[in-house]
Amino acid sequence: MKPTRYERGLKQLSAVDGDGGVRVVEALAQSFPDFATYLVEYPFGDIYSRPGLGLREREIAVVAALCAMGNAAPQLKLHLHAALHVGCTPTEIVEVVMQMSVCAGFPAALNGLSAVREVFGEAGIALPLPG
Amino acid sequence: MKPTRYERGLKQLSAVDGDGGVRVVEALAQSFPDFATYLVEYPFGDIYSRPGLGLREREIAVVAALCAMGNAAPQLKLHLHAALHVGCTPTEIVEVVMQMSVCAGFPAALNGLSAVREVFGEAGIALPLPG
Amino acid sequence: MKPTRYERGLKQLSAVDGDGGVRVVEALAQSFPDFATYLVEYPFGDIYSRPGLGLREREIAVVAALCAMGNAAPQLKLHLHAALHVGCTPTEIVEVVMQMSVCAGFPAALNGLSAVREVFGEAGIALPLPG
Amino acid sequence: MKPTRYERGLKQLSAVDGDGGVRVVEALAQSFPDFATYLVEYPFGDIYSRPGLGLREREIAVVAALCAMGNAAPQLKLHLHAALHVGCTPTEIVEVVMQMSVCAGFPAALNGLSAVREVFGEAGIALPLPG
Amino acid sequence: MKPTRYERGLKQLSAVDGDGGVRVVEALAQSFPDFATYLVEYPFGDIYSRPGLGLREREIAVVAALCAMGNAAPQLKLHLHAALHVGCTPTEIVEVVMQMSVCAGFPAALNGLSAVREVFGEAGIALPLPG
Amino acid sequence: MKPTRYERGLKQLSAVDGDGGVRVVEALAQSFPDFATYLVEYPFGDIYSRPGLGLREREIAVVAALCAMGNAAPQLKLHLHAALHVGCTPTEIVEVVMQMSVCAGFPAALNGLSAVREVFGEAGIALPLPG
Repeated sequence: MKPTRYERGLKQLSAVDGDGGVRVVEALAQSFPDFATYLVEYPFGDIYSRPGLGLREREIAVVAALCAMGNAAPQLKLHLHAALHVGCTPTEIVEVVMQMSVCAGFPAALNGLSAVREVFGEAGIALPLPG
Repeated sequence: MKPTRYERGLKQLSAVDGDGGVRVVEALAQSFPDFATYLVEYPFGDIYSRPGLGLREREIAVVAALCAMGNAAPQLKLHLHAALHVGCTPTEIVEVVMQMSVCAGFPAALNGLSAVREVFGEAGIALPLPG
Repeated sequence: MKPTRYERGLKQLSAVDGDGGVRVVEALAQSFPDFATYLVEYPFGDIYSRPGLGLREREIAVVAALCAMGNAAPQLKLHLHAALHVGCTPTEIVEVVMQMSVCAGFPAALNGLSAVREVFGEAGIALPLPG
Repeated sequence: MKPTRYERGLKQLSAVDGDGGVRVVEALAQSFPDFATYLVEYPFGDIYSRPGLGLREREIAVVAALCAMGNAAPQLKLHLHAALHVGCTPTEIVEVVMQMSVCAGFPAALNGLSAVREVFGEAGIALPLPG
Repeated sequence: MKPTRYERGLKQLSAVDGDGGVRVVEALAQSFPDFATYLVEYPFGDIYSRPGLGLREREIAVVAALCAMGNAAPQLKLHLHAALHVGCTPTEIVEVVMQMSVCAGFPAALNGLSAVREVFGEAGIALPLPG
Repeated sequence: MKPTRYERGLKQLSAVDGDGGVRVVEALAQSFPDFATYLVEYPFGDIYSRPGLGLREREIAVVAALCAMGNAAPQLKLHLHAALHVGCTPTEIVEVVMQMSVCAGFPAALNGLSAVREVFGEAGIALPLPG
C-alpha cells in the first residue's frame, strides 16, 4: 500500500533532521495539531520527498534562504542541525553562510555565523574549523 | 607570481557565468568603475574562489537566497544562467525554486519560476521538464 | 465520495478568484505541472478551504501581507481582484492598503495603491471612491 | 468642539487594545515623547479612526502583515492581543497566521504561532482550540 | 497664524524635491485624495519638518533605507532626485549606495546603482563621476 | 609603504567604533578567522575608507538601513554606538530612526527606538533628549 503524504513526510522529516525535527512537530502538535499535520505533509511529504534534488542540496538551499531572510532564527538553527545530519560538512555550511554576505549583506552573514557557532557547539564541532 | 584578487575574481566570474557575468561587470564599469572592481574582487575573488564548497553548491545557495528575498530580479536571472553554466541540472534548479515555497511562501516560488521560464527559454531548455 | 484535495482546491480557487485564478494555474501547469498541482492543493485545497475564517477575511489578510512585503507584485494584483470577487468593498480594500503605511511604511502603501488603481481600472471601478 | 487628532487617537488606541496599547504609549513617551505623540496621532488618530473598515478587519490585516514581515515580534504580540480585544475569535487569529504559510513561508507562520501561543497563554485561552 | 500641518508639509515637500514631489502628490490625489493628504501631512509636515536633522542627512537616510529594502523602486528614484535637490553631491549619493553592499548585499547595491544611473541621466550628470 | 587593505580596515574600524568594533572582530576571529578578515578588509578597508562621504554620513546611512530592514538587531546596536562615536548628535540619531517610520513603518521605528534607548543608556545619554 502506498504511504500517505503524512507517513512519507514523517519519514522524510526523520531523514532530514533525525529526532530534532520530529520533536519540533510533536511540540507544535500540542498547540496547533492541524498546522503540525500540514508541516509534515507539504514541506516534507510533498517537497522534500521529491527525487530531483539531494537532501544535501536541499539543506544548502534552505540554510542559504533562511540566513539571507534573517527573520527566522529558530528555523535557521534547526536547518543548520539538519544540514549536518544529511551530510553537509561543517566547512560547507560555513561557506554557505559566508556566501550570504554577498547576497544579503554582512549583518545577515554575521547573524548566520552566530547561529552556526551555537549549533556547532551543540553538535560538538570545534571552531575554528581546521583550515 | 600569485594572481591578484581581481585576476582571480575575473577568472572565477568566468567560471561561474561564462561571458554573461563578464559582460555585466563591463557594463557596470562604464558607469561605476570602482564598484565593478569590488564586485570582481570580493564576491568572486574572495568568496567564490574559496575551496570548501563547490560551484554547483554555491549557485544552489545563491539562487535559493535571491528567490527567497524576492527583491533582486536581475541578479536572480543571472544566477539561474550561472547555475546552468556550472552544471546544475534544470531539474535541480526547479527543485530549489519550489523548495522556496516552504521557506519564503508561494509568491516567492511563483516569481522564481517565472524567472526560470525566462532563463530556460533563453537557454533553449524546453518546459515542462520530462518528469 | 469525498473530493480530493485537488478537487477541493480547484473549487476554492474558483470561489476566491473566479476564472482569473484558474487561468493562472493553467498557465503555470504548461511549464511547471507539479507546482501547479501543489498550488491548487496546499493553499487552496488545505488552507483556503478551512472553515474558521471567511473568504473576505482571508483576502484582507493576504492583500495586507503582500502589500507589506512589497516583493510580490503579480500576486498582489491577483489578490486585489480576488478581494473584490469575494465581496470586499473597494473602500475596504483601499483602507487595508492605507493601513500598511503604518505597518510597512509609505512606499509599501504607495506601491499598493498603484496596484489598486490598476486593478480597479480593469474592474471598472472609478477612482476616487465616493467619500 | 471637535476632538483633536491626539484625542481621537488615544480613544481609538483604547478601543483597539484596551489598557495594553495605552501603557505602551506611556512607556514610549518617557523616552521619546514626540514619537509617542506621532504614534497616537497618525496610526490611531488618522488611520484606525477611518470609517471604511471595521476594527476586526484592521487587526486581521495588521496581524497578517506583521506575521509575514517577521521582523516585528513585539508589535505582533501587541496586535494579537488587540485582535482578541476587538472581537476576532481565537480560531480566526490562528487561521490568519496559518494563511501566512502560503504568503510568506512556513517559518513566518511557525514564528507567528509561537507568538499566538504566548499571547493566548496570557489571555487564558487554552490550546489546542476545540476543533 | 501658524501654518497647518498640510501647509507646512507642502512647503517641505517642495524644499525636498522641487516640483517632482508635488507632481507625485497631485497625481496621487486624483485617485486617493485622503492618502495624498496623509503623505503631505505626516512624512513631510511632521517628520521632514523637524529641526534636529538636516535635509541632506534625511535624504541620505532615506536613500540608504530604500536601497537596502530593495522593494520600493519608484520611491528610490524619487529620493535620488531629492537627494540631488537638497544638495547631496553625486559622489555622496554613489557612496551611500555602495555602502549598502555591506548592509544589504551586492544585489541591493547593484539595483541601487541602476536607479542612480537612470536618475543621473535625467539630471544630466555624466557617469563615471570624475574620481 | 602603502598599508594593506587589512591595516587600513582595522584603522578605519577603530575610527568608526573605537574599541567596540575591534572587540567584535576579535571575538569573531576566534571562531571564523577568515570571515573576520573579510569584515575588516571589505566593509572597512574598502568601503568605509573611501573619501567621498564623511563617517557621520556613512553611519546615518547604515543606521537607517539596519533600522529599516529590522532583522539585524546586534548590528544596529553596534552602529548606534558608532554613530555617536563619529560625532552624530543624539538628536540626529533619534531623528534618523523616526524617519524610518515613513520608509519602513512604525514597528521598524519603534524597534529602532528600543535599540536607541539601550545604547544611549550604555553611553550615559539621558532620555528624553532636551527638546
